[in-house]
This record gives sequence, C-alpha cells and structure tokens, in this order.
Amino acid sequence: MTLLVNARLLTMDAGRREIERGWLAIEGDRIAALGAGDPPGGSPDDVVEDMDGDLIMPGMVNPHTHLAMTLFRGLGEDVDDRLFRYILPLERALVTADVVETGARLAALECIQGGVTTVADMYYFEDRIGRVLDEAGLRGLIGQTIANFAAPDHAGTDEAFALLDALDDSYRDHPLISATPAPHAPYSTGPAVMERAAAWAENRDAMVQMHLAETHDEMAWAEREHGCSTVELTRRSGLLTPRLIAAHAMYPSEADMDLIAEGGTGVAHNARANGKGGRGIAPIAALRARGVRVGLGTDGPMSSNTLDLFSQFAPASMFQKIAGGSRKPLPATDVIHMATQGGADILGLGAKIGSLEPGKQADLVRMSLDAPRLQPVYDIYATLVFAALPSDVRATMVAGRWLMRDRVVETVEAKRAVADALQVADRFKDRIREIDGASA
Amino acid sequence: MTLLVNARLLTMDAGRREIERGWLAIEGDRIAALGAGDPPGGSPDDVVEDMDGDLIMPGMVNPHTHLAMTLFRGLGEDVDDRLFRYILPLERALVTADVVETGARLAALECIQGGVTTVADMYYFEDRIGRVLDEAGLRGLIGQTIANFAAPDHAGTDEAFALLDALDDSYRDHPLISATPAPHAPYSTGPAVMERAAAWAENRDAMVQMHLAETHDEMAWAEREHGCSTVELTRRSGLLTPRLIAAHAMYPSEADMDLIAEGGTGVAHNARANGKGGRGIAPIAALRARGVRVGLGTDGPMSSNTLDLFSQFAPASMFQKIAGGSRKPLPATDVIHMATQGGADILGLGAKIGSLEPGKQADLVRMSLDAPRLQPVYDIYATLVFAALPSDVRATMVAGRWLMRDRVVETVEAKRAVADALQVADRFKDRIREIDGASA
Repeated sequence: MTLLVNARLLTMDAGRREIERGWLAIEGDRIAALGAGDPPGGSPDDVVEDMDGDLIMPGMVNPHTHLAMTLFRGLGEDVDDRLFRYILPLERALVTADVVETGARLAALECIQGGVTTVADMYYFEDRIGRVLDEAGLRGLIGQTIANFAAPDHAGTDEAFALLDALDDSYRDHPLISATPAPHAPYSTGPAVMERAAAWAENRDAMVQMHLAETHDEMAWAEREHGCSTVELTRRSGLLTPRLIAAHAMYPSEADMDLIAEGGTGVAHNARANGKGGRGIAPIAALRARGVRVGLGTDGPMSSNTLDLFSQFAPASMFQKIAGGSRKPLPATDVIHMATQGGADILGLGAKIGSLEPGKQADLVRMSLDAPRLQPVYDIYATLVFAALPSDVRATMVAGRWLMRDRVVETVEAKRAVADALQVADRFKDRIREIDGASA
Repeated sequence: MTLLVNARLLTMDAGRREIERGWLAIEGDRIAALGAGDPPGGSPDDVVEDMDGDLIMPGMVNPHTHLAMTLFRGLGEDVDDRLFRYILPLERALVTADVVETGARLAALECIQGGVTTVADMYYFEDRIGRVLDEAGLRGLIGQTIANFAAPDHAGTDEAFALLDALDDSYRDHPLISATPAPHAPYSTGPAVMERAAAWAENRDAMVQMHLAETHDEMAWAEREHGCSTVELTRRSGLLTPRLIAAHAMYPSEADMDLIAEGGTGVAHNARANGKGGRGIAPIAALRARGVRVGLGTDGPMSSNTLDLFSQFAPASMFQKIAGGSRKPLPATDVIHMATQGGADILGLGAKIGSLEPGKQADLVRMSLDAPRLQPVYDIYATLVFAALPSDVRATMVAGRWLMRDRVVETVEAKRAVADALQVADRFKDRIREIDGASA
C-alpha cells in the first residue's frame, strides 16, 4: 500500500468533498481509502509519501484531441485558409506512421507535465498512438478516423474499418487503452458510414468519437443534402446515443440541443480552439441546463496550441459569462467538474475515474499551490480555474503509477521526444517554404 | 558593460527585427548596442552572460492594474454583486496603508516572476505602492485615486489632490516612478474633478489614469445627467488627450471611438477582467483600425486573478477573433506589440522603453523556450501568445538591473511577502464570515 499523507484533497466526488489536510491510500492501481488528518496505523510495508501540503486532485480528462498534431503547433496562425493551404497538403505528403508516433510522444510528455491522465484521441495510424500511450502510461481512447477524403492511413472506408478491427483486436484486453471508431464528421462520412460506425460500436461495446455541429458549412450541408440538421442526421444514423463523444457542438439549434439531451450524448467542449478559429461561443450553458454532460477538451494542438486543461479553464468560463452577460454562468466548480468527473462520464469511464473515491482507479495529480500567483486562496476552484498553470503540476499518477515526480517525467524520454519532433518540424518547414514560394 | 550573448532576440522595434542568435550590450541602465552572431571584441572589464539560446524580449508593460488587490484574488468569484457585498465593505473596514503595502509586495513579486517590468497602478495609499515598486526595482506610474465615494485614504477630492501633490513631490526626481492623478471614472468623479485632474496633469506634465466607458450604468449615467456620452463628457472636461490612459473602453459608440482617436488617448484593454465579469468584448479591433493606441492590462488581480500578461494574450486575441468571426483579427504579432511597445506608448514612455533598441532603457525579459509545450516554434509570436506561460520567464531586468535570475527574485523576499499577505487574507476571511453570517 502507498500512503500519500499531509495532502490537501479535492475529491470531486458527488458531495464535492474537500479535505484541508488528509491522506489517500493506494493499493495496486486503485484508491483504497482516504480521509482527514493522519492515516490509521498501517503495516510496516506501507510506502509513505509526504505531499508537503500540496493539493491532490483527480487526474484530468481530455475528451477531444489529435495528439500527433503537436507537430503543427503554431503553424499558420491568423491565416484563414490554413487548413487547405498548409495542413492538408502537409498531412498528405508527410504524415506517416513514424511521424504520428513522434508527434504523439511529444504530446504525451506535455499531457503528463500538465496533469492530464486520460485522453480521447482521433487521428491516423492510431496503433502508434496506442503504442505511445502504453509506453507513457497514460489512459485513453484511440479513435480510428473514418473519412471520405484521402486520409494518410486509409483509402476508402472499408480500409478504415479494417484498421479499426485490427486496432480493437490489439487493445481489447489492455487495462488503460480502448479503440473507438472516429467518423470524422457527418459531412465527411455520410449517413451510411455513421450507421456502420454505430453498429460496430454496439457490437463491440465501444465508444464513438465524431466532430459534430462544428462549422456553418456542416450545418448548411445537412440541410441541403438531407433536409435536416446535422444533429438530426446523426440521430437517424443511430449515433446520437451515450456512446457518442460529440466534439464541438458549436451551432446546434434549440431542437438540436433537445435531441442531444434525449440521446444522452456527451459533448466535448473545446473553448480555445473555438475562440482561436473565430468560430464563436458554443452554447455550453444551454446544453448543461438541459442535462447534457459536457467535458473540456483541447482539440489538437494546432487549434489550441497546448494540451493541458488549465489553458481551457478561463476561456471556457469567460465565454459563457460573456454570452450570458453576467459573472455567474459556469462557476469555477463546474469547470473543474467538467475537467475531471464530467470528462470521465462522457468517455464512459465515469465509474472508474474522474474523482478521488475508494475503489476508483488511482489517477491523480499533485499540484503545488506555493507560487505567489496562486495566493491567497479563498476558493480552491477559483484558484485552479483562474490562476493555476500546468507548470504548477508537480506529479502525475495513472492507475497507481507515478508517471512524473518533481516535474521529471519517468516514462517518456523528454530530450529525445523534443529532438525527434524538431526534426519532423524541419521537414514541415521545408515544405511550407515550397508552398509559400509556389503561391508567391 | 554587460554583454548578453548567445540569445534569440525579439526586438519589437518598428521593423519587427528578429535575430535568431545574437547579443545585446548594456551600459548602465541603457541598451548600448545589439546585433547578430557574436559581439565585437570588447574590453576585459565586460561582464559576459551566456543566455544559452534563450529568448530576450522587451520587458512587458501593464498599463492598468490595482496591485494591492492581490489580497482579494479569487474572492467572490461567480457572485454578481461581489463589489458591494464583499469588496467595498472590506476596503472600508480593513484596507490601511500597511495592508496596501503588503498586497503590493506580493504583486511586485508576481510581476517580476511574470516578466512585467512596468505597471500603471491606481489605488489608495499610493506612496506605499511607490515604496514597494522602488524596493522591487520596477518601473511604474502610481495613480492617486480621486473619487466622490468614501475612500480608504481620503474624504473628499481636496484631500485626494493634496495627497497627489505630496506624491508628486516625493517622486518628481525618481528615475523609474512617476505620480499621476487617477480620477476613478466619470460617474464617480464628475466633470469638475475631471477638469481639475486635466489641469493638474497639464501643469505638472503628467499622465492621467481613469476607467472609461466600462459599464452600461456609466453610459446611462452620462446620458441622463449630462445629455452626452461618457466619452464626450471626458472630452469636454479636457481629459481626452494623449495624457489619458483610458481603462476598458468596453462600450464606446462609433462616434465615441472617433473622439478617442481624435484625442490621441491611449486605451488599456483588460480582456480577462472584461470576460470574467461577463461584460463582453471590447471593440479593440475597431479602435485600432482608427489608429487608437492600445495596451494590454491585467486590471486588478481581483478581476483577472493574475498580474502577468501571458494570461491576457490568448483571451485578447480570441475575443477579437470571435467578434470578427474569423481567425484573422488581432494577429499574434500585434498582441506582443500591445504588451510591449504599445503599452509603453500609452503610458507616455514609448521613447524610453517598449523595444530592444540602442539608447532605450534596458528593461527586458529572458524566456526559456525549452518546455515541450512550446515546441516546435513556427512563429515566435504565436508561441508567446498561445503557448508560453509566466513560468517560462527565467530572468527579468529593469534599467540594467536583474530583478530575477534563474527564477529567483533578488529584490523581494518571497517567503515573507507571501506570509504577510496570508495574514491579511485571514483577517479578510474573518470579515467575510461575518458578512455571510449576517445575510444568512
């Protein structure tokens, strides 16, 4: 048994229990017990770790990202057509399985340093994402993208489903990692593929990841091609269920929001990506008011630049306050819930992770509150949402295993991960010069 | 002469010169020279410091804050009436000169750690703010608040002007610190006081700090009481000149924006405070399109929680992109300009600080770009705006003096500053329990 003592505990359990000074016991991969004060006398074999008054909170859950896109971070900012000008050509020409693995390794490092313990990823060559998460010790869903456009790892949806079958076979018994289909979006797959993904997920008891109601073009496409909203089309395809993790939900109508609520579908909100793209403010308060479960995602680091959730907290909160014209919407407590238990819930992992409770997996983060920037603390949730930084994370644990201690990541070789990524970025930069040269 | 070598230089000069690997020479309090590669052979007395490839950029300028309000940080978040419920009663009962000094010392520590080298402060007991800035080695404007409500340091505007005279007498010859009048806002001072502040500033060749067009109530008050906009009233009072630093400018009409442009008045934009308060999005792109000079402020840490400008970069950029419905408004380069030369300009210090140029004061920041979160770098401005954190600042220099090296602040005793602030916060917490108890 490992005993973390002298810790401030933020449990994020249903009662939002906070313990000013307490302890937490870990047995194998699970939380065995926790309490206030000092732990009851244990066995001499117990490993006791003094948390020095630091905060222990649940590991954070990122329900929507494209990890390997670290390699595109900061590229073509402020350029409206950067997707077609840079990203898609670079993906087609240069994104191989090795490149994906390199980008994901840099991402895993950043997740661990930022206190993210679970990710839902959708991209290409997801077997490599799985390999990186496994090495790094992170928990996650790996989503095989299925799209009707030319993708780096498949030509046609049959190939994509074959890759998905193989991925699921490989990870079926993995304790931390599961495969999911990831139909790219309604407009880029169509109802037949969505139906097939829904059936696959039902058969294999899996989650599904998809971008939904993300762009005005998507909304217009559904009305034009199918005479209904993209959300209704998703419902007709059998996908609007609790199995679906719907990323973005920027532009649902009132009726669409009712459908999402009735379907029990979870939404991954990505405030910074929405804001940076000039997309606007997603109706998160309205969705939550209907009982829709919402988690806080980062989207890919090309869209939001960072993979920690601290970067999302203030934007997510401010956007709803701006839309509501008041200081009240989306209080800090709700933001932290979305980043922990809320995110776990929409990934179908809510019974296993998301809060510090006996019996749950020991996924947790140790945060220092020592920085002058964080003091004084009147409300720990407000401190976390509006002042804490990923650099305040001191240690990160998944399933009872420390992945980082004292800011040193133990499962990813940091220097090599960065150096490898920079090599790939140099190839990207050469290509960008060609693109810019050709259009100059 | 001090030579900083092996540095990446972001000059923020008019040509936006960037040097991948270069050097910068400091003589006394000034930048003597800078260049690419290695410096020309110097004298044996030169002190050579290897920057290890780190970024050197101009020190950041925060043109609107209330430093001592660190003590209120995170208090009453999400509570709409927190100003009247908590802040004003606490200020009246407990904010003394000693308390202001304590709050400001915690703030100075955070500014230095976050790379802010110049602040424009407005609050009470500004002689104590001056004392703290002087001790800490920071550059700043100290603004004596003038208000028609009961203030902690004055009863009536005559007393406020007497304090202002004394403050100006004390700091007239200080190399880094100047006094300014700070009429609280048009509605809380009225035209006569605004006129008096304008005349005072003209006589003493000083700047003026004031909240302007910040709330809907203020806009309605001006129309009701004076039959014109609050901006027009400010103009009539002789205050709408380049001497004025107008904080917020949330709700100017098109005509008001024209007046601000014609007056040459600078605007301090405080994105996070605006967003957190549910106030909305200030028309910064529209102001800048008219040629209005805009800096990036934090407002008090009760409003935005932190005093570094990194926390403001993404919100400021995202808000304009959301308002404009595109990725293009307020590019990253402009954000960094607002945080450096732009802020310096609106404080009337643009010829002295704001960029790395020979002859300017040596106010600068050394940033590490080593964190995996910051890599790869395609565009250094995008990296700074969307991925860098105040914790990436390694060293901070004002007027040729290192205030922090290797994250150790040399001019403020960090442990004592935090401990003192926590003692005050405990008194505040007692009072808050009384307030909450009385209303329960």
